[in-house]
Amino acid sequence: MGALRGLEAFFNPRSIAVLGVSRHPDKIGRVIFDRLLNNKRMGILRAELYPVNPELRELYGQPVYASLSEIGGYVDLVVIALPAPYVPRAVLEAGKNGAKAAIVVSGGFSEVGNDPLTESLKEAIRQAGIRVLGPNTVGVFDPYTGVNTFFTKDVKPFSDGRVAQSFIFPGRGSIVVISQSGALAHYILESLAERGVGVRAVACVGNQIDINISELLSYFTGDRLASVVAIYIEGVVEGRELLNKLLELRRSGKYVVVLKAGRTPAGRRAAYTHTASMVGEWEVYAGALKQVGAVVVDNVKELADVSLALSLQRPPKGRRLAILTNAGGFSVMVSDLAQANGLEITSLPSEYIGRLERLKSEGKIPLVSVTSNPIDLSGSADSAAFEEAYRIVSEAGVFDIHLLMPFHVPPLMDESVVARLANIARSSNATVVGCDGGNTEWSIAMRTLMINNGIPAYREVEDAIKVLTLISRVYNPSKQSFPSFEIRANKASKPIRRPVLLELMEKYGIPVAIEEVVYGEVEAVEAAERIGYPVAMKIASEKIAHKTDVGGVLVGVAGRHQVVESFRKLAWVAERLGVRDDGIAVQQMVSGLELIVGSKIDEVFGPVVTVGLGGILTEVVRDFITFIAPVGEDEVGEMLRSLRLARLLEGFRGLPPVNKERLREIIASFSRIAFENPSITQIEINPLMVCGEKIAAVDVRGWQSEA
Amino acid sequence: MGALRGLEAFFNPRSIAVLGVSRHPDKIGRVIFDRLLNNKRMGILRAELYPVNPELRELYGQPVYASLSEIGGYVDLVVIALPAPYVPRAVLEAGKNGAKAAIVVSGGFSEVGNDPLTESLKEAIRQAGIRVLGPNTVGVFDPYTGVNTFFTKDVKPFSDGRVAQSFIFPGRGSIVVISQSGALAHYILESLAERGVGVRAVACVGNQIDINISELLSYFTGDRLASVVAIYIEGVVEGRELLNKLLELRRSGKYVVVLKAGRTPAGRRAAYTHTASMVGEWEVYAGALKQVGAVVVDNVKELADVSLALSLQRPPKGRRLAILTNAGGFSVMVSDLAQANGLEITSLPSEYIGRLERLKSEGKIPLVSVTSNPIDLSGSADSAAFEEAYRIVSEAGVFDIHLLMPFHVPPLMDESVVARLANIARSSNATVVGCDGGNTEWSIAMRTLMINNGIPAYREVEDAIKVLTLISRVYNPSKQSFPSFEIRANKASKPIRRPVLLELMEKYGIPVAIEEVVYGEVEAVEAAERIGYPVAMKIASEKIAHKTDVGGVLVGVAGRHQVVESFRKLAWVAERLGVRDDGIAVQQMVSGLELIVGSKIDEVFGPVVTVGLGGILTEVVRDFITFIAPVGEDEVGEMLRSLRLARLLEGFRGLPPVNKERLREIIASFSRIAFENPSITQIEINPLMVCGEKIAAVDVRGWQSEA
Repeated sequence: MGALRGLEAFFNPRSIAVLGVSRHPDKIGRVIFDRLLNNKRMGILRAELYPVNPELRELYGQPVYASLSEIGGYVDLVVIALPAPYVPRAVLEAGKNGAKAAIVVSGGFSEVGNDPLTESLKEAIRQAGIRVLGPNTVGVFDPYTGVNTFFTKDVKPFSDGRVAQSFIFPGRGSIVVISQSGALAHYILESLAERGVGVRAVACVGNQIDINISELLSYFTGDRLASVVAIYIEGVVEGRELLNKLLELRRSGKYVVVLKAGRTPAGRRAAYTHTASMVGEWEVYAGALKQVGAVVVDNVKELADVSLALSLQRPPKGRRLAILTNAGGFSVMVSDLAQANGLEITSLPSEYIGRLERLKSEGKIPLVSVTSNPIDLSGSADSAAFEEAYRIVSEAGVFDIHLLMPFHVPPLMDESVVARLANIARSSNATVVGCDGGNTEWSIAMRTLMINNGIPAYREVEDAIKVLTLISRVYNPSKQSFPSFEIRANKASKPIRRPVLLELMEKYGIPVAIEEVVYGEVEAVEAAERIGYPVAMKIASEKIAHKTDVGGVLVGVAGRHQVVESFRKLAWVAERLGVRDDGIAVQQMVSGLELIVGSKIDEVFGPVVTVGLGGILTEVVRDFITFIAPVGEDEVGEMLRSLRLARLLEGFRGLPPVNKERLREIIASFSRIAFENPSITQIEINPLMVCGEKIAAVDVRGWQSEA
Repeated sequence: MGALRGLEAFFNPRSIAVLGVSRHPDKIGRVIFDRLLNNKRMGILRAELYPVNPELRELYGQPVYASLSEIGGYVDLVVIALPAPYVPRAVLEAGKNGAKAAIVVSGGFSEVGNDPLTESLKEAIRQAGIRVLGPNTVGVFDPYTGVNTFFTKDVKPFSDGRVAQSFIFPGRGSIVVISQSGALAHYILESLAERGVGVRAVACVGNQIDINISELLSYFTGDRLASVVAIYIEGVVEGRELLNKLLELRRSGKYVVVLKAGRTPAGRRAAYTHTASMVGEWEVYAGALKQVGAVVVDNVKELADVSLALSLQRPPKGRRLAILTNAGGFSVMVSDLAQANGLEITSLPSEYIGRLERLKSEGKIPLVSVTSNPIDLSGSADSAAFEEAYRIVSEAGVFDIHLLMPFHVPPLMDESVVARLANIARSSNATVVGCDGGNTEWSIAMRTLMINNGIPAYREVEDAIKVLTLISRVYNPSKQSFPSFEIRANKASKPIRRPVLLELMEKYGIPVAIEEVVYGEVEAVEAAERIGYPVAMKIASEKIAHKTDVGGVLVGVAGRHQVVESFRKLAWVAERLGVRDDGIAVQQMVSGLELIVGSKIDEVFGPVVTVGLGGILTEVVRDFITFIAPVGEDEVGEMLRSLRLARLLEGFRGLPPVNKERLREIIASFSRIAFENPSITQIEINPLMVCGEKIAAVDVRGWQSEA
């Protein structure tokens, strides 16, 4: 046996000791030991296995060791299922006896507020020089090596004495599951098992006192059995480290699917800007994860469905979808859904329609078949007809995705359809996915057969389309890594003075609408006439955050008379608010599409930038993207495409097409302001008016931490 | 036996004859006969059963009749499974022999373009004086009477000789399924069966040559076993008749759930207005169905899930949700989802939190339980702890919805939890729904037990929340019926002249922004000074549909000089378009929130009205509602609430709260224009500017059919 690499002691140890093996079969340590013993007896676990408990002499006729040192042999992995207070000493013991790793199953640390115990465990880990997973974790499941510390019982008795399976472990496969919650890990594993999909390994990180998600990502980046990493995240500490590890994983050719919990509203504390009030923890995670090419899903079902797809197929190269079915009702539903999700149901080229029509006249597919796309062979098609038709669809070569929907109820359909279709799918460049709408014994058997033949198969049409939609948007990150950013303690913020803001805009090349600050009526009229009517007039003071709300903005001011009148109104408002001395701004009126571009410092990821729809609809429509600063222009371009308002940038109803290169430049530049000036806590352009070649910041506000 | 009422001959006949019983066991007529015979033998079917085939003498040792007349006895229902050309004669025969009803299973009529055969079948029906379901239908399934004409085989052989169930019929229940597609009916039935839910009856209408969906709705309105009607619609002819029948059904205390197929984009033909280009067939159906209090769902899964819920529980009275669980991960997920869907997770009153805390100190619920809402009893809770805690939650009486999520994996959970919770649920006024996240044998058994105890139970958290979201928005229609509207053939439309439009607005009390049409520069300046700067100026001609697109609108025109300049620009554009003689409009600038209010004549429902977000974002944001005209003010108010922009009407970021009563009046009035003037094909106010008390139509355009 060679030396263990990295975290291998957790997943492929040569020997395992379980601390806390009780005489009671329901106690956690005992459940873990029993399952490992069972795996050992079945030849799944190759590692040596040692039960440890000073109060127990014997179990199943075999000796139980009083301590790790009594074992005398080599122990790579120690599983600790002892009451929390005993854990630090057990870790020290493990270190003394040459163990490489420990899984601390025990709870009772910081998660219940016991921080001192956490500190003493940390100290023990440092002294012992071993690696620890947990505490407060269900640990590891590796179906290749038989390591399994999950302490769930997998059968339960009904009151009448019958027994039912109450948990199912998935078999061997290529999906790695990393979870911050034991309960969710169970839910995920059961969802995968139910779909007939196997896992490469599962690791629950618990309180992450030593080993964290990022380190596990590194470990599996080099694992040749792993193809997809499915992650359930509640929260991490080092956001940029996580992103850099994910970038490496993606570059190694693996896919990442993430479920992030906690879609809580953004913190209202110190939310001076819309950016800060709209963009909460979840939005930042989602934006950052998409930026590194992860698929962000909304629930466990999607996590399982997408992981299944990416473990068998590559993401589609484009959005052109071919649908092959024998149920007209499905054709309609799936077309609706696909188009609503941005997939394109392009036509089969006429040459291939001709070939399908010839199949009809040769009696090889039913006469009533619809030969356009969706191709509907009707309920009277048999498996051979499916094969004939699919060969032609595949040979056409114009589709990025093949959705195969053999509806199994018609009597002529038999199991051979799966092998027939899979043979053709294997030689195709398209992403191939199956769906059948049934959940009988027969349908389940057919789906399992499809999956075993390399075609991810789903029960519901909407699940198949959801998966295709999500994986067709996987972003291939160009970025090599995120530069580190030191996040300072959250200090009180003060507004950045207007001249400073304007200087920043100039330095970073962001155009600002022409504006003059005036202090008297005559001056105001002179300014307005220089700028040209109509003008906007507003209170100039940066101390007022939402000027519109206090009646501090007047637009469409036209002519001397109106300027004087507006000046008086605004001066009165300013007087009342105590900001009369900061003057009144007279500004060029700019029209077009209102965008918002803002930044804030996220506690996990540092500076983040949000771009989206501005104006009064901002918080109602919520059409925005968020990303980690700084970003390059290409990255911005890629992400802007996912905005609903993207099509307005192409020119729309009288608005000329926006100079998108310039817009990308401006946004990339803005992201550098956020990154390069760590004292700026929030800065926001709202609106950034865009109209053809004209792009101008109409209002800029910013806050910086008090020095 | 008494006389058969209405369509009873289809669902509860005293005798059935099957025409087309073949010697081949796979032929449709034979499959139907065999299943009916089996039901007869098992005592499920009470009706007398007669096989008919002139070429067959005997089947299973029993006589086969050569014709209906040979039966000699009384036949209520004739099932016709003959080649299409023989069908009209068979219908005549049925009539002559005193049959009440026929189900024409045979296909080969208008659905394959054979209209002459359809005509002769219609004629036969008229002569025979019987009622016909179909043709081209799988017919009827009634588990109470054993009538079942579905010709699906429910088992299939694998190649190795094993046999698997390939279709499952649901048992007895209270859900009526009406479907316009046989394939979809199968999908729906299997989905219900899988959830352990029964049906009252199923009817597939096929080509609806005689009996249509509306008549079936009438029939089941009076059925005391039916509680929910689930409908799959592809399209109907008499839209207002359907709506009136649905109103009656809703008033009888039953619920309606509809899946409408075909979310095709709106027809581009003659789409002069945004309304016509945004609002397609699907949007009209969806709006109309919601208006009569139906739940509109997106797919079969939702159809089954919502029908299950409404067959066991009433829609919630409000949106306050209590969550009781033993899995923290679920708490987070479900809270996120619920809030994102507009449900409110309000706090448990402190008195009841106190009672839960006492349970903790008494050791009746785990010490680590979270006693706020979501109430998380943790993985160490047993069934008794769930009962204790739920009693307190229920007694608090402040929640409209109880979501019970006993996660079954923890070893202490046993089956008694279901009966314990159900006992409390029965005496509660809240809507109670269960969810557990598992799909093992154990979980499925627990869900079935919940359903049998009156609690709809779902596997996935998001399914439970989706159902609650949908049923918490069920509208209780105040309308008694929709007045009929004669839809004229689609004639070419011509623009309605501006003065006529303005007269209509005045007549119906819809305020219009002040405007003067001018023909020269001096006149323009005079008008602008009367109206007050800044003004908007535009080409006045109603011949130009999208004035913005051709550079025919200038806003923010401020001062004499700009008026002259603008007049010249617009005059030049008008000249080029040949509409110089129609003049230039000088209009008051109105600011605020831009709405769109438009009408069109739908081919199925007649005049419909759409209200939503106006301006350049209209087609990007797609935030609108559509309803059948005319509507009352209360109805409008109810529907406006479902717009995302509804909160903007409450006053937002400097905009004062909109006078909603006035807005409702204006919209209701507009709907009367659409209904009372049948020659108007499309009319649209875009934008209708709303800002506090000020509401004004800034632009109105209309088209009418050429006389």
